[in-house]
Amino acid sequence: MEIIRENCGLAGVFRNKRAAEILHACLFSLQHRGQEAAGIILGKDDSFSFHGNRGLVSEIFTSQVIKSMEGDYGIGHVRYSTTGSNSSRNIQPFFIDYKGQTIAVAHNGNITNSRILRSKLENQGAIFQTTMDSEIILHLLVRSRGRDIREKLAGTLKQLKGAFSILVFVQDKIIAARDSCGFRPLSIGKLSDSFIVASETCAFDLIGAEYVRDVEPGEMVIFSDSGIDSYKWTENIKKSHCIFEFIYFARPDSCIFGKSVYLTRKRLGENLAIECDFTADLVMPVPDSGSIAAIGFSQKKQIPLEFGVIRNHYIGRTFIQPSQKMRDSGTRIKLNPVKSIIQDRDIIVIEDSIVRGTTCRNRIRALKDAGAKRIMLGISCPPIKFPCYFGIDFPSKEELIANKMSVEEIRRFLGLDGLYYLSLKGMLDAMMLPAEDFCTACFTGRYPIRPDFSFNKSQWERKDGCDS
Amino acid sequence: MEIIRENCGLAGVFRNKRAAEILHACLFSLQHRGQEAAGIILGKDDSFSFHGNRGLVSEIFTSQVIKSMEGDYGIGHVRYSTTGSNSSRNIQPFFIDYKGQTIAVAHNGNITNSRILRSKLENQGAIFQTTMDSEIILHLLVRSRGRDIREKLAGTLKQLKGAFSILVFVQDKIIAARDSCGFRPLSIGKLSDSFIVASETCAFDLIGAEYVRDVEPGEMVIFSDSGIDSYKWTENIKKSHCIFEFIYFARPDSCIFGKSVYLTRKRLGENLAIECDFTADLVMPVPDSGSIAAIGFSQKKQIPLEFGVIRNHYIGRTFIQPSQKMRDSGTRIKLNPVKSIIQDRDIIVIEDSIVRGTTCRNRIRALKDAGAKRIMLGISCPPIKFPCYFGIDFPSKEELIANKMSVEEIRRFLGLDGLYYLSLKGMLDAMMLPAEDFCTACFTGRYPIRPDFSFNKSQWERKDGCDS
Amino acid sequence: MEIIRENCGLAGVFRNKRAAEILHACLFSLQHRGQEAAGIILGKDDSFSFHGNRGLVSEIFTSQVIKSMEGDYGIGHVRYSTTGSNSSRNIQPFFIDYKGQTIAVAHNGNITNSRILRSKLENQGAIFQTTMDSEIILHLLVRSRGRDIREKLAGTLKQLKGAFSILVFVQDKIIAARDSCGFRPLSIGKLSDSFIVASETCAFDLIGAEYVRDVEPGEMVIFSDSGIDSYKWTENIKKSHCIFEFIYFARPDSCIFGKSVYLTRKRLGENLAIECDFTADLVMPVPDSGSIAAIGFSQKKQIPLEFGVIRNHYIGRTFIQPSQKMRDSGTRIKLNPVKSIIQDRDIIVIEDSIVRGTTCRNRIRALKDAGAKRIMLGISCPPIKFPCYFGIDFPSKEELIANKMSVEEIRRFLGLDGLYYLSLKGMLDAMMLPAEDFCTACFTGRYPIRPDFSFNKSQWERKDGCDS
Amino acid sequence: MEIIRENCGLAGVFRNKRAAEILHACLFSLQHRGQEAAGIILGKDDSFSFHGNRGLVSEIFTSQVIKSMEGDYGIGHVRYSTTGSNSSRNIQPFFIDYKGQTIAVAHNGNITNSRILRSKLENQGAIFQTTMDSEIILHLLVRSRGRDIREKLAGTLKQLKGAFSILVFVQDKIIAARDSCGFRPLSIGKLSDSFIVASETCAFDLIGAEYVRDVEPGEMVIFSDSGIDSYKWTENIKKSHCIFEFIYFARPDSCIFGKSVYLTRKRLGENLAIECDFTADLVMPVPDSGSIAAIGFSQKKQIPLEFGVIRNHYIGRTFIQPSQKMRDSGTRIKLNPVKSIIQDRDIIVIEDSIVRGTTCRNRIRALKDAGAKRIMLGISCPPIKFPCYFGIDFPSKEELIANKMSVEEIRRFLGLDGLYYLSLKGMLDAMMLPAEDFCTACFTGRYPIRPDFSFNKSQWERKDGCDS
Repeated sequence: MEIIRENCGLAGVFRNKRAAEILHACLFSLQHRGQEAAGIILGKDDSFSFHGNRGLVSEIFTSQVIKSMEGDYGIGHVRYSTTGSNSSRNIQPFFIDYKGQTIAVAHNGNITNSRILRSKLENQGAIFQTTMDSEIILHLLVRSRGRDIREKLAGTLKQLKGAFSILVFVQDKIIAARDSCGFRPLSIGKLSDSFIVASETCAFDLIGAEYVRDVEPGEMVIFSDSGIDSYKWTENIKKSHCIFEFIYFARPDSCIFGKSVYLTRKRLGENLAIECDFTADLVMPVPDSGSIAAIGFSQKKQIPLEFGVIRNHYIGRTFIQPSQKMRDSGTRIKLNPVKSIIQDRDIIVIEDSIVRGTTCRNRIRALKDAGAKRIMLGISCPPIKFPCYFGIDFPSKEELIANKMSVEEIRRFLGLDGLYYLSLKGMLDAMMLPAEDFCTACFTGRYPIRPDFSFNKSQWERKDGCDS
Repeated sequence: MEIIRENCGLAGVFRNKRAAEILHACLFSLQHRGQEAAGIILGKDDSFSFHGNRGLVSEIFTSQVIKSMEGDYGIGHVRYSTTGSNSSRNIQPFFIDYKGQTIAVAHNGNITNSRILRSKLENQGAIFQTTMDSEIILHLLVRSRGRDIREKLAGTLKQLKGAFSILVFVQDKIIAARDSCGFRPLSIGKLSDSFIVASETCAFDLIGAEYVRDVEPGEMVIFSDSGIDSYKWTENIKKSHCIFEFIYFARPDSCIFGKSVYLTRKRLGENLAIECDFTADLVMPVPDSGSIAAIGFSQKKQIPLEFGVIRNHYIGRTFIQPSQKMRDSGTRIKLNPVKSIIQDRDIIVIEDSIVRGTTCRNRIRALKDAGAKRIMLGISCPPIKFPCYFGIDFPSKEELIANKMSVEEIRRFLGLDGLYYLSLKGMLDAMMLPAEDFCTACFTGRYPIRPDFSFNKSQWERKDGCDS
Repeated sequence: MEIIRENCGLAGVFRNKRAAEILHACLFSLQHRGQEAAGIILGKDDSFSFHGNRGLVSEIFTSQVIKSMEGDYGIGHVRYSTTGSNSSRNIQPFFIDYKGQTIAVAHNGNITNSRILRSKLENQGAIFQTTMDSEIILHLLVRSRGRDIREKLAGTLKQLKGAFSILVFVQDKIIAARDSCGFRPLSIGKLSDSFIVASETCAFDLIGAEYVRDVEPGEMVIFSDSGIDSYKWTENIKKSHCIFEFIYFARPDSCIFGKSVYLTRKRLGENLAIECDFTADLVMPVPDSGSIAAIGFSQKKQIPLEFGVIRNHYIGRTFIQPSQKMRDSGTRIKLNPVKSIIQDRDIIVIEDSIVRGTTCRNRIRALKDAGAKRIMLGISCPPIKFPCYFGIDFPSKEELIANKMSVEEIRRFLGLDGLYYLSLKGMLDAMMLPAEDFCTACFTGRYPIRPDFSFNKSQWERKDGCDS
Repeated sequence: MEIIRENCGLAGVFRNKRAAEILHACLFSLQHRGQEAAGIILGKDDSFSFHGNRGLVSEIFTSQVIKSMEGDYGIGHVRYSTTGSNSSRNIQPFFIDYKGQTIAVAHNGNITNSRILRSKLENQGAIFQTTMDSEIILHLLVRSRGRDIREKLAGTLKQLKGAFSILVFVQDKIIAARDSCGFRPLSIGKLSDSFIVASETCAFDLIGAEYVRDVEPGEMVIFSDSGIDSYKWTENIKKSHCIFEFIYFARPDSCIFGKSVYLTRKRLGENLAIECDFTADLVMPVPDSGSIAAIGFSQKKQIPLEFGVIRNHYIGRTFIQPSQKMRDSGTRIKLNPVKSIIQDRDIIVIEDSIVRGTTCRNRIRALKDAGAKRIMLGISCPPIKFPCYFGIDFPSKEELIANKMSVEEIRRFLGLDGLYYLSLKGMLDAMMLPAEDFCTACFTGRYPIRPDFSFNKSQWERKDGCDS
């Protein structure tokens, strides 16, 4: 997989004296879901402390910062990149002071009717300081009628369309909720007497918490001193988990939607091996995203696995690209082919997906330069042809290579001796959940819910060809 | 392998307009040899520019810095950690202004008679500002008699004992040299009309240079506008390559001492598979150091390979350890076991080496906690029992677990169901060079040259049990 | 004067290609009005750029930042210190994106009915992210009905009570307005064809602009491509300029409210000389706040002026206070007495005002320690007995020394041989404007407008003794 | 005075638990002697701690740094600007580890035979890492023969020519010494039972120490646990105090060479008033350097003093110069004329000295622009015509305006209505020490000692016209 910038990670804790430490560790283990910014808000009696910034978790939360944050409950967030001149404000959890009380929201997903909601709110006099969906959610929450936070939040969530796993912070409570499709993951764990919420279970492993269960689609879970309370905020539930979480996003050591990412990903590789008829001297993954599928492929095909490219772990975000003239070797900064393994061999490369195709082409060329005789590429999912409206920042339809070219054309563009994409059936068969529980819109164009185009097309400009 | 802090990386370039960029890229690809500090010195006509600091290459050399550095020849260095109140001065290349000319030295290795040399020099009135061997080398060079830099440097090198791969920078020349044993690697490459020197060939790959040959033990190579000149600065040559470079230090995509690190490391795994009689459901490496040996082991044993632990790539050097109570999960920050793969399985873990044993024990415990039924550990080299005087900063003999315990005791200490170390014969057999070309002192105590103990034992305090 | 933290500075520019440079220079020359934070927002066609942070103008606006800011009109702000966990958001100009347009407000003063307004707005669903009055103004502006920005802003200003000099930024316009009392200064200048607005005229000097006139109390001035338009937003005008701007705040090289600060301040010193009967060997100011009054005093009294204390210009905001034992000399960090001038002399010290009295006492003691024989203190205004609700952050009434002690008690507390405060009549007589044009509430307790206490007394807790 | 970059400040303390705090405070009060870099070395038993960097004292020595520095004796240094690619090494105190002991030197002045000494040392094999005289001193000290540090240091000092006030740090001792002419000041103070050494007595005031006496020309004072020991290291003493220290460098609240800077500077102004026949409406200083002389001038002439320009205190070192077009107002960044005082008046401006004349010209023009009718300039010293070899970094002879132009030409160049320089006699008469105790070479070209030109003229290239 090349460059998918979007997605976010959420973490929450309720009643633990080491709340700052725990949220820090959780966000650290969710860093793969967003490397652009991070924030934590903690509550203590009627005061709160917030710290957030752009950068990596390990950079933002120094030991001094962690020590200075007081509180035994709170929520945290890691964010993907956004643009715009006020992006320094776009840090979550987003918090406000409302009638003397602090309320905060952290959000993972994409609200598809956000422009309509924002416009309505602006007509009612609301003012916005960020471009984040979480600010819209807070505006709705504050205007929502209801006897208590549960009713208010239910009233709010009913107005939202699209994908949202959210955490809400109010005094002496945190609340976790998911949209009615359950696009993005959100799990509940337990650490001694305290509760933990996190986007993926790898966060539980790091702090030694036990997985309890997922927040269900259409469910709202309130953590307070009277325990856990669960509410269905909608009856209109239609499971549509993002299948791409299994293919690429989630860490292999996590369980999401109740199932092991590692095992699922390995089964993708196995099904790929069954479907495609490549033969070669060796199988090699594009590390790390293709590694688990490559294991499955190699075992099923009985072709030995080798680490044909070596990853450099010291790439900071500030590494300077070599100049134009050195560009061909530019792709080797991150991944360097191992000539002694590749030279004069027929190789099968396993990758999780292809988006634009440009990075992939550079990598194939580097393998060629290193002396590979024949190169075949196996992709552990079908061609990505359609944009995502539910939280993954794919490029526009026009930039998706599989939307513009046939598989044969892609093979030639990438300079390959063979290219095989796993079939839709093969992909769904690898899942350990029913096929109908997944959103596969990026492959099929069948969107589980219709985004609101009526009001404002400009939001979708980059994605306008949507045929759902 | 746990914590081996020492070793360094060298890079040089002669006559290339993009010298700053090239040295930067080379040092970046040699970052695994030293993460504590880095520096580059460039020459242009009779001026020079230097930039160095503590930190990672990607942090120190911003694009602004690279652009500001002028020159078409130069040398660079990455360094391991050192201690002491003046450590901020301990950045290489170490340079001086001598009679209006700038001279600089970068060094990889360990001069075993450094205290004797330093004391002699101090008695002659020399003053020292750092604790680095390269400062001693410069003092000797400046006092050396000879008609030209070649004779002066030869006279200097003859006074040094121990391990040294060095680069020297003088006006319009760079010089590469190795000690008479060739302990540390140093290779020559070519990029168009310019010459490159680097500790490992992976540096050549990144910039698109071609490997030419190694600097030979006892050789000095002068790069100047009249081309390459080679001199034997000593006749007394006895090859003693550091075998640990193959086992652990070098990147698998490098060739060192003329041979592929990947293939050698895979053969170590194969020989381990032949020697040991473990059976299990799966083989898993400790990433990344054990990965290549695990491939060889798995293929030879016909036991499937799995990625039983997942590495977190976002560990900055500033990550805060969880508190005491969370310590058991502390070891999972870097490597998290994949429960769904490990649970209720018999597993063979492949690791490159054991030094103190403490980190290893924590990792084994994490695997146990994740539900592994039986855990066996295969080590792709013999037990490390002796200190190294030639550039690897092993802990003292007392801290080396294999010096204190039998293999069976180590097995119990680590909480294993099985432990097997590759035999000395098996290790040497895996090499693609004659056995007598290697220094194996850390395993055998047979040091190829005797360190100077006569003068000052205090330097060796931590290593005093040396029985060579 | 000791520690008065409050007050702010405003600057605006309309249609000048060097807008960023100009606002930077203006804010720099207004730095004395607020050292805690600064910000600039610039407009260019339908885009904008904002940069702001905590710190000094010279730290925040590096040349890189200034170069990166595009636009030919904009507004800027320097701010005094505020507290609270979300103070990093409290940077002005405060801007929002409203229906696709950027609107920003910068404010100097204090809105006395802010809590009532905020509460009303919250009941209507508004959410607040800062504690700044400018956020309230923006909420009101967005909800205000009116055909155009002029009507909307007039509708907004009519709801505000208290002191406000404000600048508003909308697309292709900037607007300057002052409250109906004209508490805080705001002047209009011209630089070639472009307009400048600034809190004080010293900003015009630095950029070479010419002073045109003041924004009048109750006036709103709109700068657009059709020129300057002036509107009276209220008929209910009652001039009440803050007399303390002349006594302490404004720079002596500025004209405010149309009059020279230097000349006024010198007249304060002259009137003090006329009223008080001190005789001494020399007159010395507490630099720099007492310097101009000391000139007037010295000339009128015919007693020679000397610089009896020397100011250290290198005090960063990070200077470490010497330890407890060195505390007595702590006061000398900023101002060191010149022993050779003071020793065995009778001296008259001229200071602009006394607030708490503690800093003053330390300074008097330092002069005593330096050997002064007799020390008399002349204050160029009457005793400060009442809090300010219009933008000056005096301590609470209880902390004002003149509220607790008689002049004789203060003299003894400060360890003086003589203490004289300028009379109210003497102060007003020094002004070059009619006495009735000034607010003198901090001296007299006669507040020109009544703050809203009905709703919420807690805001005034620190200031509750208000007898207006 | 315009831009004189050179000179340094020294501070030392012996046996005080708050040594770090004390040195920090002393360096802070000596900041005017060097704003480029600062360093402190402290000793504790046989260990030491050093901290230094480029920047201001208040930036370098944070409270964390001060707390982390252990020791009860030590020395510190503030430095003027130097250039060159290795300038980051040019931080004093310069320290080395010699035979296991730390030795450090801090130096104020200029060694005129430094190139000869350096060349000799290099021929003996010494290598240099900085361009500082203090490194030469350390080399000589280490090679010096003698039974103890006193003899060694005496042997070292005898080899030095030129100006040096130095502090030496060895284990359990600090040593203060001055050259045989006593060019630069150095004073001894006492704080309880501990000793303080500092370039100026203002450092004593800040920490509450009492002035004891000066280190004498040709004297070496050793502070150890056996008390103070004084040695004459040379018999060949010829007092030649730098008169420019009184005119410009030293703080007015200091005593140097035993006399008050304030009183001397005021007498310079008085003598100027006696000599020159200007009449005007007011006298104004160029703050702060001309302030004290202006007081003397005003009092003697009976012409009222006014602060005709106001200094902005917030100029960081990073302030961006306004663009070319704003350049004329550029000079107002630091000093802004007060129009209301200057307009239509005849004014006498008092300045300490003129070097190049360019800054002065801009200031005069700013006063003209502010409406001054006639401007006369009085300089409180004679024309500066000759370079200084003893520690003041005047520009080269060619750049000194008084070397190229007559007084009348300078008057016209500066756009003045009158210009008067104090006579040599008037200047010397203002001193409270005998005329023969001073070096007046910059005015007269009569150098008290001859710099060594024989060996190497290149050092003096910028100053080569020296006719001494």
